[in-house]
Amino acid sequence: MPPFSRVTVIGLGLIGSSIARGVRAHMTGVGLTGYDADPQVRETAKAIGLCDDVADSAGAAVTDADLVILCVPVGAIGDAAREFAEDLPADAVVSDVGSCKESVVTALREALPGVAIVPAHPVAGTERSGPEAGFAQLFHNRWCILTPPADADPLAVERVAEFWKRLGADIEMMEPAHHDRVLAVTSHLPHLIAYTIVGTASDLEEVTSSEVIKYSAGGFRDFTRIAASDPTMWRDVFLSNREAVLDMLQRFSEDLSALQRAIRWGKGEELFDLFTRTRAVRRSVIEQGQDDAREDFGRAHD
Amino acid sequence: MPPFSRVTVIGLGLIGSSIARGVRAHMTGVGLTGYDADPQVRETAKAIGLCDDVADSAGAAVTDADLVILCVPVGAIGDAAREFAEDLPADAVVSDVGSCKESVVTALREALPGVAIVPAHPVAGTERSGPEAGFAQLFHNRWCILTPPADADPLAVERVAEFWKRLGADIEMMEPAHHDRVLAVTSHLPHLIAYTIVGTASDLEEVTSSEVIKYSAGGFRDFTRIAASDPTMWRDVFLSNREAVLDMLQRFSEDLSALQRAIRWGKGEELFDLFTRTRAVRRSVIEQGQDDAREDFGRAHD
Repeated sequence: MPPFSRVTVIGLGLIGSSIARGVRAHMTGVGLTGYDADPQVRETAKAIGLCDDVADSAGAAVTDADLVILCVPVGAIGDAAREFAEDLPADAVVSDVGSCKESVVTALREALPGVAIVPAHPVAGTERSGPEAGFAQLFHNRWCILTPPADADPLAVERVAEFWKRLGADIEMMEPAHHDRVLAVTSHLPHLIAYTIVGTASDLEEVTSSEVIKYSAGGFRDFTRIAASDPTMWRDVFLSNREAVLDMLQRFSEDLSALQRAIRWGKGEELFDLFTRTRAVRRSVIEQGQDDAREDFGRAHD
Repeated sequence: MPPFSRVTVIGLGLIGSSIARGVRAHMTGVGLTGYDADPQVRETAKAIGLCDDVADSAGAAVTDADLVILCVPVGAIGDAAREFAEDLPADAVVSDVGSCKESVVTALREALPGVAIVPAHPVAGTERSGPEAGFAQLFHNRWCILTPPADADPLAVERVAEFWKRLGADIEMMEPAHHDRVLAVTSHLPHLIAYTIVGTASDLEEVTSSEVIKYSAGGFRDFTRIAASDPTMWRDVFLSNREAVLDMLQRFSEDLSALQRAIRWGKGEELFDLFTRTRAVRRSVIEQGQDDAREDFGRAHD
């Protein structure tokens, strides 16, 4: 038996629509209701048959749910929860998929006092957005981190864990604060740097934008993928996980200065040592099944 | 008729072995000799039948060549050229594949006075190294930039251009100094940043290396691919293209500081505007055929 029988997804972007498709693919018989604040997204969701039902308000969407998953930008999560708070069945569990967890836990507890809250973060995604971007396999063999409050109902935590296992994910438990520091380095800082370099490259005078794009296969193109991620989602992540991001950024800047100095003073051995060390990290990522084992991410060559 | 009838490849790593395979695939009847300074690489090249002949010295490798292509790290290019200078036929054309061109042009002109030199840079690669890493399709639909000196023989330039076209590449001509500034932003800076962040992430105390790898699908894993590139090659690139790299790095650091400030002071609009602008760059990269049009680089899911 699936751990929940009526699931409501609030926010039908990449993650929300992937959850919807995952429920359809892996949890036969489970009722599926969707809602999105954007009427156009609701229309698209209806047109492609993403859920059994797409409601016209958040309240209407949750009335008979036993699991509600908020898949909205982290800065909007409190307001989104307040929208359906009055209509939420007493025994419903509320979860989310936000990329930072301390701010989310606070916002959800404020918006939904007395409700069983089990925050979650599936570490998965692509550069695409919207209800048509999702796919059921997105969470397969990816980690989903749960950050339940200390006083969370163990049964609710177990059911949310089981839900994500059925979507194909592996489960890990973490304190919200530790989650936010781990993700600051494995996700938020990489995005920040990618956004920056794509901006820097676009602003040069003597190298034209068309040259930057033309010769992007030298490495730059990898960064453009990450820098194509959803602007609203990422604005909110940086503002919500400010302290951890700024701290990681500080460390990165120090390391970059050291490398800058090594280049300026021709310290080849220092460069070589770092580049050898970083090479080993890639091997571990592949060994642990966290990336495509094929070269070049499996990019098509002719 | 192919533009050259006897091609010698010096340096049988990723690029050299891809050229060898490309000649085999696209230029039937062309003689192919290989040489590598590393005896083990020569053994492997022989074992896998990479060339018609693998010579035991650079001199022996070039004696009847009409095209010699140096595929060695840019810091080694002068010495590698001197090794065969005396044995080079008078009418042979010498080219290379180095990622920076001002230093290469200088080194080759010094090492090979009076020789027809046509420097080239195919903007293509993967994170793998060695004679077994190459494949014939690597250059298909990629740009190959030629940076011939002002006094270069136009026929030699035309023949090298034709050679690369047969390997599947599109040709562009550039001044060496401009090439070095363009590639500093589209290739060298991205590599430097990727190496740095992978180093930064490995050095944290409170976030373990195993956590960094485990949750790398949040974005970090993209950087590990680039940071797995050949350490010797990249050490040489940064030292050889020092001024352009340091200048681009300076601009990047300024932009990163501005973003840092925007996060610290909660300037969401500034972040949103940049993230929207960078998203458009990805679209151009795809439209111009410079990356896999599939989401997530075409990574396998499931």
